Amino acid sequence: MELEHVGIAVNSLEQSVPVFEKLLGTTCYKTETVESEQVRTAFLSGGPVKLELIQAASPGHSLSRFLEKRGEGIHHIAFEVADIRAEMRRLEAEGFELLDREPKPGADDRLICFLHPKSVHGVLIELCQRLPA
Amino acid sequence: MELEHVGIAVNSLEQSVPVFEKLLGTTCYKTETVESEQVRTAFLSGGPVKLELIQAASPGHSLSRFLEKRGEGIHHIAFEVADIRAEMRRLEAEGFELLDREPKPGADDRLICFLHPKSVHGVLIELCQRLPA
Repeated sequence: MELEHVGIAVNSLEQSVPVFEKLLGTTCYKTETVESEQVRTAFLSGGPVKLELIQAASPGHSLSRFLEKRGEGIHHIAFEVADIRAEMRRLEAEGFELLDREPKPGADDRLICFLHPKSVHGVLIELCQRLPA
Repeated sequence: MELEHVGIAVNSLEQSVPVFEKLLGTTCYKTETVESEQVRTAFLSGGPVKLELIQAASPGHSLSRFLEKRGEGIHHIAFEVADIRAEMRRLEAEGFELLDREPKPGADDRLICFLHPKSVHGVLIELCQRLPA
């Protein structure tokens, strides 16, 4: 599995995008609302992987709860896989706990699934598979 | 700047390394004690970037405080730069707060410096520059 992006929870894309643009010396190249997750996202290139800034699009969802409890900061890391269903079966058999029984539509034209952080030493892991163009 | 590794705080390398080996389907290729940070580290390949598992080597240091306060989880992201001192000057001029006035020796033969998370929307950022072999 190869790291595809790092997800960062923020209160406001408007306030945080310029900060990360200055940090990285690059420009946000895409913003997108992900209906399945009720989030708004903004992407920046961090070299071989992307940074995904994530803002809650509505209250009460898991990202809002994360921000209330932990504040802004690194939220998850995402790994690209060729066959997400096969990888979900492999990881479940290895003892990891899946947060989604089926892959769901994610940002940037990908199917995604999360693993429970309690089975990965506190790290929220996303699996993602690129959809055919 | 290009992402070089993701740092993950763990209570025990012995317990967490096998979990991340199963997750990634790879093998830990290096462990190292970093005296300047009082941590023990273990590296695994996550494709284009590394995962660095970090365990406190002695109590009372910042990693121990992080683990007491937040528990295990993603601790920092690190970006490789060609000239760490020039990058520190640039970022300070841009309004980022440096946690180190001078680069210090880090893991994996690199000079490192941290930025304060409060100036980066809660994200602890490490800059690293590879030392000449």
